[in-house]
Amino acid sequence: MRAARFHAAHDIRIENVPAPAVRPGTVAIDVAWCGICGTDVHEYLEGPIFVPAANSPHPLTHEAPPVTLGHEFSGVVAELGEGVEGLSVGESVVVEPYVVCDDCLPCKAGNYHLCTRIGVIGLAGHGGGLSERVVVESRWVHPVGDIPLDQAALIEPLAVAYHAVQRSGATPESTALVAGAGPVGLLLAAVLKGIGVTTIVSEISAARLAQAADIADHVLNPTDDAVADRVRELTGGSGVDIGFECAGVNDVLDTVLDAVRPAGVVVNVSIWGSRASVDMQKIVLKEIDLRGTFAYVNSHKDVISLVQEGRIDLAPFITSQIGLSDVVSKGLTTLIEDNESSIKILVSPTM
Amino acid sequence: MRAARFHAAHDIRIENVPAPAVRPGTVAIDVAWCGICGTDVHEYLEGPIFVPAANSPHPLTHEAPPVTLGHEFSGVVAELGEGVEGLSVGESVVVEPYVVCDDCLPCKAGNYHLCTRIGVIGLAGHGGGLSERVVVESRWVHPVGDIPLDQAALIEPLAVAYHAVQRSGATPESTALVAGAGPVGLLLAAVLKGIGVTTIVSEISAARLAQAADIADHVLNPTDDAVADRVRELTGGSGVDIGFECAGVNDVLDTVLDAVRPAGVVVNVSIWGSRASVDMQKIVLKEIDLRGTFAYVNSHKDVISLVQEGRIDLAPFITSQIGLSDVVSKGLTTLIEDNESSIKILVSPTM
Repeated sequence: MRAARFHAAHDIRIENVPAPAVRPGTVAIDVAWCGICGTDVHEYLEGPIFVPAANSPHPLTHEAPPVTLGHEFSGVVAELGEGVEGLSVGESVVVEPYVVCDDCLPCKAGNYHLCTRIGVIGLAGHGGGLSERVVVESRWVHPVGDIPLDQAALIEPLAVAYHAVQRSGATPESTALVAGAGPVGLLLAAVLKGIGVTTIVSEISAARLAQAADIADHVLNPTDDAVADRVRELTGGSGVDIGFECAGVNDVLDTVLDAVRPAGVVVNVSIWGSRASVDMQKIVLKEIDLRGTFAYVNSHKDVISLVQEGRIDLAPFITSQIGLSDVVSKGLTTLIEDNESSIKILVSPTM
Repeated sequence: MRAARFHAAHDIRIENVPAPAVRPGTVAIDVAWCGICGTDVHEYLEGPIFVPAANSPHPLTHEAPPVTLGHEFSGVVAELGEGVEGLSVGESVVVEPYVVCDDCLPCKAGNYHLCTRIGVIGLAGHGGGLSERVVVESRWVHPVGDIPLDQAALIEPLAVAYHAVQRSGATPESTALVAGAGPVGLLLAAVLKGIGVTTIVSEISAARLAQAADIADHVLNPTDDAVADRVRELTGGSGVDIGFECAGVNDVLDTVLDAVRPAGVVVNVSIWGSRASVDMQKIVLKEIDLRGTFAYVNSHKDVISLVQEGRIDLAPFITSQIGLSDVVSKGLTTLIEDNESSIKILVSPTM
């Protein structure tokens, strides 16, 4: 079968590899669509990061490059391994793409997403969604019912956003600022609106701001607006209950810490390439909770329900659909050169 | 009456001022003992900080320097204003030394300690514990029963520690690291032990470490120990559930972020003089909650009960007792020149 495999930075190849065989307890899935994630872009430009280094195989998958990429995928069940129940051949599914040890203290505490040896399918081995077929343990396979398979490929990044909202403790009565409207920021705004939260988005790119305006209650551009002051105006003087830092930019983190009300919550969603400079006195004097959020845990069922109930419409987030051969030329390159107008590029491994 | 009044940095004077008169709804208290706080030291060295600037009176007290100092005090009820109930003349009490507006959003949400115009008695006006008599609104007066009045003067800093523990969500099953064993760090360790938490203290000063050894389950000295590694050894490999940063030092904050387990909580207790450099990736990948804590709110009754039940012994924290005339020479100067062997210096305004 064909697969997009990471060999090294700037070296992703479309190759023929043996199709994986189903084993007891696993499910073979014919991939329908696979999204390209910002993480994939980082691996392409600067990897290996979450991909194991050459000569340093991942402790659970025992694989090192080349590895197949793609962790945001939907597909159709092709074959069930011995002992698998609750799934049927032909069913539409998505995959929670984890490889975990089940043995470390976070795993035993139920925080499998914080497994000390965690691997991600599509980065650390065990195949990936940028190939025709994937075989995964049945525990990670979630049926999506009649959600169209292209939209279903966005369940994975939507779960990232959903888990960030869970970490925030948001309720329908909350007010929130989403600072940064990249794909995760936009999906976060969609989750917040889906559960009834009054949502303000700040973003510097006009193209992204236009996308956000279709979702959020208010949009602010830091170029024109003193964001924290405007947020206070929009919230009766108090500031928002919750701020989400989705940019990984120090000025944005400062703005979010400024824009939340006393006793508010700031969730850091973004990945940081370097240390941040933080005004600890603001955290102390306002008694802010600054919470990290990583991936998702036990989130997929809720996320799938939100989409099935029509509370989140994923169709507008799909900005192009390409074939596997074009992963680099029309996928990664587009996200690198013009990442403002693209939200999610989907890849079909059979196109 | 005599009072120690802040005029400017390095200018605290013992002066004769009119004794305050009781008004309806207030209580006159004859001060027994008043502790000298690190905040007082900062005001003396670099103030005005929490003291209003000259020509910029506090918005609620309408006072500017000179102001009477002292916010950690105990005393005896001398006179009750009209309408005051539930208190009796001659009763031992302590004061929660707040001046709040009751009108801002945090006040209305019950977070009076985060009042946007907050003032502290003994810093922002309305007198202070470094004088013979104080008159305060009855809502802030808490009877202490038979707790000796010298120990009762430590209820206020103990409330700071107690509130930090409340913010952490600690339970008797928790493990905790207290990083920094100044007065608040030591009191924090005492509160943690008082509620049954397994407590590790790290501290670089040998004198403070010796004090901590009488309270904590384990003490570590960063000069000799790789603190985060030792904390993992002491907690079965996981790291502590909760870390308290009580030093305001960047290396210490790094250690605490390293020493907590995945999904752990870090409470920043210290006051920072400058911005901190924070490894946001650690907060993200371990899903840490970094929580600020400020002063106390609705804490005094619980704190007084802990002391009355004998779960915290405050006597060892009192390292000297001096008269009002010696506030600078034997009080502030000692804390500045030799702050390692002193924990709490108490001042009697009538000695």
